[in-house]
Amino acid sequence: MTVLILTSEQDVTADMVVARLHERSVPVMRLDPADIPGRAVLSADYAHGDFDGHLSAGGHVLSMGGLRSVWVRRPGEPAAHAAHPSPWLTAETRQALYGMLYSAPTRWMNHPRKADQARYKPWQLRVAHLSGFAVPPTVITTAPRVAQQFAEENGDVVVKSASGPPPGEPALTLPTSLVGSGADFSSVAAGPALLQRYIAKRADIRLTCVGSRLFGARKRAEPGQVDGRVGDTGHPWEEVQVPDRVAKSVREYLSLSGLAYAAFDFAEDEDGLWWFLECNQGGQFGFVELETGQPIAEAIALWLAARPADGRGPECRR
Amino acid sequence: MTVLILTSEQDVTADMVVARLHERSVPVMRLDPADIPGRAVLSADYAHGDFDGHLSAGGHVLSMGGLRSVWVRRPGEPAAHAAHPSPWLTAETRQALYGMLYSAPTRWMNHPRKADQARYKPWQLRVAHLSGFAVPPTVITTAPRVAQQFAEENGDVVVKSASGPPPGEPALTLPTSLVGSGADFSSVAAGPALLQRYIAKRADIRLTCVGSRLFGARKRAEPGQVDGRVGDTGHPWEEVQVPDRVAKSVREYLSLSGLAYAAFDFAEDEDGLWWFLECNQGGQFGFVELETGQPIAEAIALWLAARPADGRGPECRR
Repeated sequence: MTVLILTSEQDVTADMVVARLHERSVPVMRLDPADIPGRAVLSADYAHGDFDGHLSAGGHVLSMGGLRSVWVRRPGEPAAHAAHPSPWLTAETRQALYGMLYSAPTRWMNHPRKADQARYKPWQLRVAHLSGFAVPPTVITTAPRVAQQFAEENGDVVVKSASGPPPGEPALTLPTSLVGSGADFSSVAAGPALLQRYIAKRADIRLTCVGSRLFGARKRAEPGQVDGRVGDTGHPWEEVQVPDRVAKSVREYLSLSGLAYAAFDFAEDEDGLWWFLECNQGGQFGFVELETGQPIAEAIALWLAARPADGRGPECRR
Repeated sequence: MTVLILTSEQDVTADMVVARLHERSVPVMRLDPADIPGRAVLSADYAHGDFDGHLSAGGHVLSMGGLRSVWVRRPGEPAAHAAHPSPWLTAETRQALYGMLYSAPTRWMNHPRKADQARYKPWQLRVAHLSGFAVPPTVITTAPRVAQQFAEENGDVVVKSASGPPPGEPALTLPTSLVGSGADFSSVAAGPALLQRYIAKRADIRLTCVGSRLFGARKRAEPGQVDGRVGDTGHPWEEVQVPDRVAKSVREYLSLSGLAYAAFDFAEDEDGLWWFLECNQGGQFGFVELETGQPIAEAIALWLAARPADGRGPECRR
């Protein structure tokens, strides 16, 4: 039974997990969807009243019946490395590869449909609330009057992007920024703004979840620091115990969202309360492992290597 | 309680359903996501330990608490009509609109995540088999040898696209085509091919499903006709009784795929057996209603207008 890792060739984080799988003698196929068609070959057979499929890459052949789990790390666009790439070839290759994988009885970290859903930040806020997290008051609006009123009611508020930084080269960073209630909100009409009550924090928390295993990390913040990703405070990430109440909410969130892996960001306030900021289903963990020494890569390898007791059908509603 | 219809301005099929909803005095908001920001305004409020959201368009305001159901018909790209459109504005607006709608307790025809999944043809074949349909032997491969062998084993086979016709203008049609086993399959290595055993058919079947209501339509085929969409045979679509066994499989398929609406295509062979070809979660129904007189638009209006007994949370795993 083989672990399939979908990622690009240059991925040192995947290397860490592959090394742990090799230590355990778990067969691994590492595949970049960009290499189909060409360096990798696929065949899916719906021919004999049943289903089987095969992937060949790097001299190895993986049968769908021997698929243990799939880790969707940083896969390239299907057919991106083809001799004659085109949007249509990408669409056909995506259908062939993922259609075959969706037909297989396997475990996913994370299933692309669950990942797609989990990327919606407004939905994250709702699910976080339902899971029992403390969530800072937030509004997303194209109405300047609503933005103005929210800022007046909440005092210091931050504005951030819902979808992440604008695409393109050179890459832009778009730090979360403080805005006062006296700001001019008229431009909100030109594009939706996400405004959130500013949480005066004493630390940033990164909580990495691998199945049911939780790895808490904490970095002390400077007074008045807004975006933990921007500006080096000199403080290191240190291991931190996850409060029971938070652990319970995390399990609820993962259950509601169907995620096997997730990286949560919290702001720890002066009272020690962890405020939910976001949950990134594909968040990096390498820097946490490096600074805290927590065995996250090993936990991922163990999750991928596990053999579930029950056979699972294709990813369906029930 | 209002029905929200996401579609572009020019959509006569949506007009048919809107007319039926008006007859029943069911409030309707018709919205093109392309009109946000600008002609339509949205605000989602995660501010008071709970959630509410509002959409304003055409002088009407829809609260998420008053959302009865959402029909995803032919929505435009979010922000496509903005004064300064950009991929980033589209991404932000998609987050704001769909993130808000995913947070609401409502019924979907069809939920975009279920629709995304249902578009994968190889997955369709697998789910069709699990649902008990007769499915023609099929292979999807980038290996010329596998394609060649499949053609030799199955005699007459057809080749078709998995993802649909190539995008772009002018629109291309890509008819399903017969290939003999003597064909040269070497080009399969350049892009995945979907090969399927040819079913000699006496009729095309279109089965339109709206919730639990099934509308069968049949069009007689000319001997040797391969693609029912191409070439006018002069035969009309006529209402046809849906065999019990097929109806049972349809219900299983809809349950496994989580779809509220679907249009199935079958080939009826000389023995009267219906062979599953594909299931289009967004398939057109106007032409069927026009030719057979079946009240499909009315069935959609009734489904959208229904008030479910139970409140539903946001679209989650369970």
